[in-house]
Amino acid sequence: MLAPLTMERLLALSAIPACDISESARAMARMSLFDWLTVSRAGSDQPLARIIRDLVAAEGGQPAATVVGLVPRVPARAAALANGTISHALDYDDTHFAHVGHPSVAVMPAALAVGEEGDRSASAVLDAFLLGAEASIRVGIVLGRQHYERGFHQTATAGAFGASLAAARLMELSRDETRHALSLVGTRASGLKSQFGSMGKPYNAGLAASNGVEAAALAKRGFVSCDDGVGGPQGFVDAHVDEVFESEAWSQDLFLFENVKHKLHACCHGLHATLEALRDLRRRSALDPERVAQLSVCVNPRWLRVCDIKAPRTGLEAKFSYTMTSAMTLFGVDTAAEHVYTDTLCRDPRLVAFGKLVDVRADPGLSDTAARVWVELTDGSKLESTHDLAAPLPLAALEGGLRAKARALLGEAAATELWSDVAACDRLSARALGHLLNR
Amino acid sequence: MLAPLTMERLLALSAIPACDISESARAMARMSLFDWLTVSRAGSDQPLARIIRDLVAAEGGQPAATVVGLVPRVPARAAALANGTISHALDYDDTHFAHVGHPSVAVMPAALAVGEEGDRSASAVLDAFLLGAEASIRVGIVLGRQHYERGFHQTATAGAFGASLAAARLMELSRDETRHALSLVGTRASGLKSQFGSMGKPYNAGLAASNGVEAAALAKRGFVSCDDGVGGPQGFVDAHVDEVFESEAWSQDLFLFENVKHKLHACCHGLHATLEALRDLRRRSALDPERVAQLSVCVNPRWLRVCDIKAPRTGLEAKFSYTMTSAMTLFGVDTAAEHVYTDTLCRDPRLVAFGKLVDVRADPGLSDTAARVWVELTDGSKLESTHDLAAPLPLAALEGGLRAKARALLGEAAATELWSDVAACDRLSARALGHLLNR
Repeated sequence: MLAPLTMERLLALSAIPACDISESARAMARMSLFDWLTVSRAGSDQPLARIIRDLVAAEGGQPAATVVGLVPRVPARAAALANGTISHALDYDDTHFAHVGHPSVAVMPAALAVGEEGDRSASAVLDAFLLGAEASIRVGIVLGRQHYERGFHQTATAGAFGASLAAARLMELSRDETRHALSLVGTRASGLKSQFGSMGKPYNAGLAASNGVEAAALAKRGFVSCDDGVGGPQGFVDAHVDEVFESEAWSQDLFLFENVKHKLHACCHGLHATLEALRDLRRRSALDPERVAQLSVCVNPRWLRVCDIKAPRTGLEAKFSYTMTSAMTLFGVDTAAEHVYTDTLCRDPRLVAFGKLVDVRADPGLSDTAARVWVELTDGSKLESTHDLAAPLPLAALEGGLRAKARALLGEAAATELWSDVAACDRLSARALGHLLNR
Repeated sequence: MLAPLTMERLLALSAIPACDISESARAMARMSLFDWLTVSRAGSDQPLARIIRDLVAAEGGQPAATVVGLVPRVPARAAALANGTISHALDYDDTHFAHVGHPSVAVMPAALAVGEEGDRSASAVLDAFLLGAEASIRVGIVLGRQHYERGFHQTATAGAFGASLAAARLMELSRDETRHALSLVGTRASGLKSQFGSMGKPYNAGLAASNGVEAAALAKRGFVSCDDGVGGPQGFVDAHVDEVFESEAWSQDLFLFENVKHKLHACCHGLHATLEALRDLRRRSALDPERVAQLSVCVNPRWLRVCDIKAPRTGLEAKFSYTMTSAMTLFGVDTAAEHVYTDTLCRDPRLVAFGKLVDVRADPGLSDTAARVWVELTDGSKLESTHDLAAPLPLAALEGGLRAKARALLGEAAATELWSDVAACDRLSARALGHLLNR
């Protein structure tokens, strides 16, 4: 039973001095910052974005922090709620598989809002985000797969602890105040998977962010919680998992965050390894899709129940289809662009015809981050490729992928400008970082 | 498995026309309104009240609703958070034993804030409160004792559903919008018992109230949640109880709210039946405590682990002591007054000496709402009395008790004025009702 130690370890994490944070972790945090700004801006016109902005705009109040797509600034707690929700609207943000969740959409909105409110530097925001995200990942691992299976959404639940840690650090809370913030958010953290497929899913990310800000803001003012609302008796872990196992979360070196994965395609994550393997084939040989006789795709069996719609009819269905996204990749349709997934696309005769050549098979020997593809050409020759998303991507390749994604979502000029702003963010204030949401 | 029906039944509850609400239920709701206003004002100077007011005052915003002890009005969501927390600060508000929770502190702040925001009548607020409280009680019963034992605090969790139903009704949401509000609050509802004994406990009531307002405000703007985030797959009930039993909650006639119990003594609820039995003895015979040789108190065994501090040293310990509160009752110290429970009181030689004559015993045959007391006088004569809090109190007796409590907490003049305002509340607007928080 390691859970009771969780509080002490979270407190230790929150107190790591900036000089002890590795540059490799910071580089990855910067990638996530760029990606988070990209998907936030790209999701800014979604119906749910309009609704949540309307709520916080109607409330108004102290102009402390920026909301994507809103001119007046609003209180930090409200900005965190709105930005968390909007940034997860496209479900195109980063994922940490061990956490079983999306770290950036829960933690970044809290860090940014509190950083803006307190007029901190962008570097302080980035460090607080990194430590908060690390906290959310480790709490997510402690909660484990059983928590997720029970119906809870780690992005929201574990995310709230990360958000409160990031907020507490930026508010420069004492150790005791940080403890109260973390304990208090234990009674506030929530989020269920029944919301998947509705606006409630992105809302869950907003909850995590705003809960974290609220708990830290109260602790800063002297609010007293119980000793350990995280791993203590009847604390969050105790109430939300059936059995607390000896967890590996805390025995691993910093930073688990470095294993975060960024989505480079605007479709279900279960398709990404396949699309990367196909892109690899295209890079290696000038593969003409008209010359393909058959394409075989092998993936872990779990994905066949998730994203194997054979003949998608809508843009949304296309996002869950091996046949359609494989055809898109080989015909050069940009799978990173949100707007290409349309009902019209699903009626494109070339894509539909190609889809019939695709054979998707289950291979229990493959992990759920891997895919193997092989192509038989009309001349009888064969090509094969394998990709595993778990393998670390070289930073330059990740940069290339994220910038291509930003171009697909925001356009060439905006993507270039955003990249250079984020690359130079060490010289920015948190408020200048906030401006990037609405450039 | 009745849980999936819960959503339909909540929707039916929310749509009951005002003309179908019984006057007896309304009379009880008015008692709870008076009591809620009393304890809110009495708790207004507590440290946690200052902290939560400071947060919402710093945020500012649209002046929509009143907060206890704060001059500027604030947005409804913030007012609900603050008033929910402040009104539960003294833990002196009403309780519903089947619900396993405190209905008014979760639902009234939501109803009042939304009523003020929308400029509704006080009657509409009272009806919405009644239906919301009824909803929270029934959801509390569906969640059951197992939910509470697991570590969840029904006041907060079940309370959020009641708060959202009340808010949705006052916003005049359609059936579909109300469904979305209730489903959405399913992913937001939270609250743990680990907070008991800290400021986190009253905060839990504030969470319920503000979660309810937020969910309804989003649903009103078109936010779409899943079909059934309450009793559906991976909905709130599914994730938060181990087994859903055939529940009696929904087979009972309206209004279970009529069984709500109001605290008439500013101490642990486990002491109240004993104090009422002693008051009964005092009423029946001019009982001189100096002539008592022994006082025997019999209660359900569970209370001996809760409130049997034999020699309390602090005011707080006195609130959990049969010996001290029995002595107070017989020596005419007003147990309804918050301010009498002091460390000095615990050193009063007459009370301390009397406490040594008190013998507290467990009787498994008594329900946890009952107590039996008997007194042996120095002349050898005996007196006996029994009281069960579960027995309905005639409305006039309840009025007497609540007005005496209000006098003890707010003073004679304020209590009298508050009573006459609440008695005439059918002629008031919700905003005028809000003013009563700060008279």
